[in-house]
Amino acid sequence: MKAHEDWMRLALELARAATGQTSPNPMVGAVVVKNGKMVGAGAHLKAGTPHAEVHAIDMAGHEAEGSTIYVTLEPCNHIGRTPPCTEKIIASGIRRVVIGTVDPDEKVRGRGIARLRDAGIEVIEGVLAEECQRLNEAYFFHRRTGRPFVTLKTAMTLDGKIATVTGDSRWITGEASREHVHLMRHQHDAILVGIQTVLFDDPKLTARLIPGGNHPVRVILDSRLQTPLDAAITEVSEAPTWIFTTEERDRERERRLRDKGVRIVSTGTASRVDLEKVLEVLGKEGILSLLIEGGGTVNAAFLQQGLVQKVIAFIAPRLLGGKDSPTPVEGENPHRMQSSLSLKDVRVTQFDQDICVTGYLDA
Amino acid sequence: MKAHEDWMRLALELARAATGQTSPNPMVGAVVVKNGKMVGAGAHLKAGTPHAEVHAIDMAGHEAEGSTIYVTLEPCNHIGRTPPCTEKIIASGIRRVVIGTVDPDEKVRGRGIARLRDAGIEVIEGVLAEECQRLNEAYFFHRRTGRPFVTLKTAMTLDGKIATVTGDSRWITGEASREHVHLMRHQHDAILVGIQTVLFDDPKLTARLIPGGNHPVRVILDSRLQTPLDAAITEVSEAPTWIFTTEERDRERERRLRDKGVRIVSTGTASRVDLEKVLEVLGKEGILSLLIEGGGTVNAAFLQQGLVQKVIAFIAPRLLGGKDSPTPVEGENPHRMQSSLSLKDVRVTQFDQDICVTGYLDA
Repeated sequence: MKAHEDWMRLALELARAATGQTSPNPMVGAVVVKNGKMVGAGAHLKAGTPHAEVHAIDMAGHEAEGSTIYVTLEPCNHIGRTPPCTEKIIASGIRRVVIGTVDPDEKVRGRGIARLRDAGIEVIEGVLAEECQRLNEAYFFHRRTGRPFVTLKTAMTLDGKIATVTGDSRWITGEASREHVHLMRHQHDAILVGIQTVLFDDPKLTARLIPGGNHPVRVILDSRLQTPLDAAITEVSEAPTWIFTTEERDRERERRLRDKGVRIVSTGTASRVDLEKVLEVLGKEGILSLLIEGGGTVNAAFLQQGLVQKVIAFIAPRLLGGKDSPTPVEGENPHRMQSSLSLKDVRVTQFDQDICVTGYLDA
Repeated sequence: MKAHEDWMRLALELARAATGQTSPNPMVGAVVVKNGKMVGAGAHLKAGTPHAEVHAIDMAGHEAEGSTIYVTLEPCNHIGRTPPCTEKIIASGIRRVVIGTVDPDEKVRGRGIARLRDAGIEVIEGVLAEECQRLNEAYFFHRRTGRPFVTLKTAMTLDGKIATVTGDSRWITGEASREHVHLMRHQHDAILVGIQTVLFDDPKLTARLIPGGNHPVRVILDSRLQTPLDAAITEVSEAPTWIFTTEERDRERERRLRDKGVRIVSTGTASRVDLEKVLEVLGKEGILSLLIEGGGTVNAAFLQQGLVQKVIAFIAPRLLGGKDSPTPVEGENPHRMQSSLSLKDVRVTQFDQDICVTGYLDA
C-alpha cells in the first residue's frame, strides 16, 4: 500500500507537467485514490479552465464516493473564473482530502480546509509541504510580498567571463544550455535586461526555441530611453515590451516607442531606474516571476539591493582570459570576501558539457 | 568468471592507493589470478622499493605457477634500483601476463613484453589502456616531452572572482575543497605561484592538511627577486624552494636567499621569467607534475603559451561582485569568444557545497 507521500509525489508530477502554462494561477495536481488504487488524476492546465481537483473527480466518476483525494494545494472555496472546488469535493462523496500546502492567496488561506472540515470530511495537511511550496515558489512569493519572484540567470566561462571586452558572447554555452534558457523564459512571466544588453546584443528575448513556448513580457531598464527604434524588442507583435525609465527620458523617442506599442513607465526623477518600483509595478500587473538576464551592472544592482531570490548560473568548460573581459556581477568593489552572498540549497546539473548551478538567496 | 577488465580494474585500484608516494616512479598495481581466484596482489609503494609484480608474486608463492598476472604497466626488463620484473615473472612459472599499457620510459618501451614473449609467456596488451595511462598521466607526459605535466588549479566564486580588490580571498571555498587542494599538493612534485601571491598571501604551499603528506617543491616566479627574506616559503626546512628569476634580479637579496637554502635560477636577460625554460629545468630535475596555483596573470601566461595540460577549477556557490575584483585568468584581452580554450573530458564533482570541474587542454 502506498503512503500519502507516494500519492502526493504523483500529484506533484502531474502539476509540474503544466509548467509554464498556468500563470497567473499556480500549478496544481490531484489524484483520487480508492482501496489503494488510483481512480482519478488531473492537473490545472491553464487559467480560466477547471482546477486539478475537478479533472480528477470527473475522471473518477462514481468511484469518487468514499475515496481520498490528494491535492498539492488547498482547494479553493470561492467563486473565481470557475466554481469552488470545495463544493465539488463535497458533492462527490469524497471521504478524505490530503493537502500538500495551504493556499497563501488571501481569498483562500485556510478557508478551503475549514469548509471541508465543516462538511465532515477528514483533512490531512502538510504532506510534502516544502516540495509543494517550491513547485509554486513564484506564486507563494508574490502572494506574500506583492512582488515577482526574481531569478538571476548568468552564463560564464570557467574563468568567470560573460563576454570579451568587445562584447562578443556567442557562444559561451552549448546548444543544450541555450535551449534550457528558452525553457526558463517560457516558465517566467517576464524577463529583464538593461539598455546595454539591448544596444550590444539586440536580443529578441523570446522563448522561440521551445515549440509553442510562451514569450515572457520583456522588461528593459533604460533610464535615459536610449532604446533604438529598430531594436528587436520593439516588435511587440511577438511579446509585450515594457521599458522602465526616468524623468530624464527622451520625450520624442518616448512618443515614437509608444506608437510602436511599447509601454513606457517612469520610476521618477532619480537618474537611475528605481528597481523596487519596477518590482512593485510588475507585481501589481500580475507578473509572478521575473528572470534577469542582465550584464554585470544590472545584476550587481539587483543583488546589492537584496532583490534576488534565486540564482541559476551556467558555466561553460572553457577559458577566455582577459583582464578587462566582463564578469557576471560587477558594481562596487567589496573589500571583504565575507561580504559575499552565499547560496542555499545548491543543486548542480549538467547540460552536455556545461554545468548549471542553482541556489537560493535569503529572502 | 571475471573478465580481464575486472582484474585490471582491481590492479588499477591497488595502484591508485599509492597516489602521491611513488614519484619519480609511476604508480603500478598487479594481481595474480589462478583458476578464477586471486592468489596475489601488490602495488608499487615508493621509489627504490619492490615493484608491484614482485609483491604480488611473493604473495602468491607457489600458486604463481601456471597463473595469470595482471599489471597496469609493462614489467621492466632492466636493472634499476631493483632487479628486472620480467625475470621474476619468468622464474615464478606465470603462464600469462595481461598488461594495461606499454611503459613509455626509454629503458623499457616494449622490451619487457619482448622478453616475456621470448620466454614463451603469453602476453595480452592494452587492457584498459587509456585508464592505465591516465593513472600516470604525469609520468607519461614527462617521458614523452621531458617536461612536467602542468595542472592549473583555480578557486573562484560563482561570479568568477578569486579575491576582493584588496586581495582578501579567505575563504572562497569550504574546508572540504581546501583539504582536497592539499591532497593535490601531496600528489604533485612541485607547486608554482607568482611573486604577487607571495607578497599578498605569504603562503606556505605545503600539504600540511594531509597527515603524512609529501610537501611539493615550491616554485616561485619572481623576475626581479622581490621575495621577502621573511616569507614563509623561505623556510626550506619544510620543503625545498626554487625561485626562478632573471638577470634583473637583486644580487644582494639573491645572496641572502641562497644563504637560507633557497635555490635561485635565472632564465636569462628577458624582463620576464621564461616559462618554457622553467618547465625544462623542472623536467630535468625529475619533476613529473607541476601544480599552478597562481593569480590571473601567471595563469594567463601559462595558458597563452599553451603550457597547461589539465585544469581543476573549484567554484564556490557565493556571489562577490565588484567591477575590479580579480578573476582566475587575466592577461591580454581577447576579442572573440571563439578564441577561448575548450576543456575536454570534463568531470564535475562536489566538495560539500563547492563544485569542482576537471578537464584537459589539447597537448
